[in-house]
Amino acid sequence: MTNTVNRQVTMASRPDGFPSEDNFRIVETEAPAPQRGQVLVRTLWLSLDPYMRGRMNPGPSYAAPVEPGGVMQGEVVGRVEKSESEKFKPGDIVRAHLGWQEFGVVEAGDAYRVDPSLGPVSTAVGVLGMPGLTAYFGLFRVGRPEAGDTVVVSAASGAVGAVVGQLAKIAGCRAVGIAGSDEKVGYVVDELGFDVGINYRAQNVGAALGDACPDGVDVYFDNVGGAVSDAVLDHLAVGARVSLCGQISQYNVPEQEPDGRTLRKIHAKRATAQGFLVYQFAQQWEDARRRLARWVNSGRLKYREDVVDGLENAPRAFIGMLRGENFGKLLVRVSEE
Amino acid sequence: MTNTVNRQVTMASRPDGFPSEDNFRIVETEAPAPQRGQVLVRTLWLSLDPYMRGRMNPGPSYAAPVEPGGVMQGEVVGRVEKSESEKFKPGDIVRAHLGWQEFGVVEAGDAYRVDPSLGPVSTAVGVLGMPGLTAYFGLFRVGRPEAGDTVVVSAASGAVGAVVGQLAKIAGCRAVGIAGSDEKVGYVVDELGFDVGINYRAQNVGAALGDACPDGVDVYFDNVGGAVSDAVLDHLAVGARVSLCGQISQYNVPEQEPDGRTLRKIHAKRATAQGFLVYQFAQQWEDARRRLARWVNSGRLKYREDVVDGLENAPRAFIGMLRGENFGKLLVRVSEE
Repeated sequence: MTNTVNRQVTMASRPDGFPSEDNFRIVETEAPAPQRGQVLVRTLWLSLDPYMRGRMNPGPSYAAPVEPGGVMQGEVVGRVEKSESEKFKPGDIVRAHLGWQEFGVVEAGDAYRVDPSLGPVSTAVGVLGMPGLTAYFGLFRVGRPEAGDTVVVSAASGAVGAVVGQLAKIAGCRAVGIAGSDEKVGYVVDELGFDVGINYRAQNVGAALGDACPDGVDVYFDNVGGAVSDAVLDHLAVGARVSLCGQISQYNVPEQEPDGRTLRKIHAKRATAQGFLVYQFAQQWEDARRRLARWVNSGRLKYREDVVDGLENAPRAFIGMLRGENFGKLLVRVSEE
Repeated sequence: MTNTVNRQVTMASRPDGFPSEDNFRIVETEAPAPQRGQVLVRTLWLSLDPYMRGRMNPGPSYAAPVEPGGVMQGEVVGRVEKSESEKFKPGDIVRAHLGWQEFGVVEAGDAYRVDPSLGPVSTAVGVLGMPGLTAYFGLFRVGRPEAGDTVVVSAASGAVGAVVGQLAKIAGCRAVGIAGSDEKVGYVVDELGFDVGINYRAQNVGAALGDACPDGVDVYFDNVGGAVSDAVLDHLAVGARVSLCGQISQYNVPEQEPDGRTLRKIHAKRATAQGFLVYQFAQQWEDARRRLARWVNSGRLKYREDVVDGLENAPRAFIGMLRGENFGKLLVRVSEE
């Protein structure tokens, strides 16, 4: 393992608005050696997720930002190459916040064993990982749907949205998905079993929601914000719950003028809008993961992966995701399993 | 009682933006006679409240709108003049949704006895009535403050806001009030015991909140919306609750462009924004009213009434209230007690 080349993707400069490939740099270093209590992990799958855009900004967030020249943050599924901990042995499959790199050293306590019997190991950062758990808790704990409710989800074919709609169906609700192409809309309806799909790029979202939700929207699971969410807020049922998971439409735009409509719409319907982070529910993750795995294995919960080969292609894939160009959970295959 | 003149204020025309006195008309009719099961009530105190502006708009709300030519809606404290019900006898003091008029007939089941032992009868539409109950439930049930929390309330010297801040103090919280004049700010701090007051017309609200709330805002009780609320949302603590009671700054402005900031701010702090109506809690009103009366009688809960004499002055007073010109609970003295 000595002198093994370790490719990394660093943030060369902070983006202003939409990131470009210039904001990233591929660098080569030497793979580090684990110290006592640490493990050396080789990345198999790098997960690309919208939250990473926030880490590229300066200033406080719920996590520290990436500094210029620093390795981009991200969760990976990897294989233990070398272990200085009794907790792991070489060959073990783990997930860890290793970042955008081929190799990394982490404390053994910051690596989590992946159980290959639950499904392909890539699902540990997908339907059985952070995106799936985000859907589970954001829908069930924040959205609090009752059987018979109408649940609307934006970015419906994405890693989180696709799970939200299917969980809504499992829970006896109607599921309405909003996505950005006819292909994605067809997928959530025909493959995932959503009741209605709306293409926000081609349809008038407000009119389509009026047709799809004659009794109003009981739960809105919001991954996007912006104009799509504004239209959904016009269709809230009295007592509706808005589960604020993400606001991807707003991550790359300059700050806009304040307005008074959003709170007024929530107020008018005695609705609740609540932001959440999946980490709030960390103590219940394992239980939720088992439930998700059961549904995946029984065929009730489907997932789709959008795989990009090679770490060097991560920046372009990430930028495309911010534009809605991915279709399913976006993963970078960094090394062969 | 036959041929008694009954003055009424009707809505002559729907306002476009801020109402003007032209939108109202004083008309004289004959006081009606109660039928079996009804009572004739003489108005003593008419309550003027911001929600009435919404009733002047067409279209659905949580209550039917006033139609042009119809009597303005409103709750009054009145005296039973004539009763065709065993439930009431002449001289009884009641509150009822009689509207802006000197006399009105209501079903006995729609009139509620006012207990004069609890306080001056005008408090039945003030600190012990809808505004006080709105403060109570909106703070305790929606805002859910814990002792030690920082509670911010807008329109802090108003009928609802003044109660919110004092209840927050009773509950062991810090109270920060935002109001529109130095006199109002002085009142909430010096008379009502708020910890800090901010004059939104004279101060930079954001900077003042930064000073007043170094650990962030745990509960924001929002009566106003608009720019003031936008500034408060920038100071939410993680897990904050926004209790959406009113949005008076937005009742008279044309619809604005959508923006993406409000949901994003709520999301960023895993905060909850929840709209409510005091009617959701109707089954618990009597218990809350007793608690409020106890605090009023012990001197822990103070109130201030802004009294206008004569029904004919109600339109001007109402318009002034929408501009923030009232100071305390706005009441029209329609008849002498």
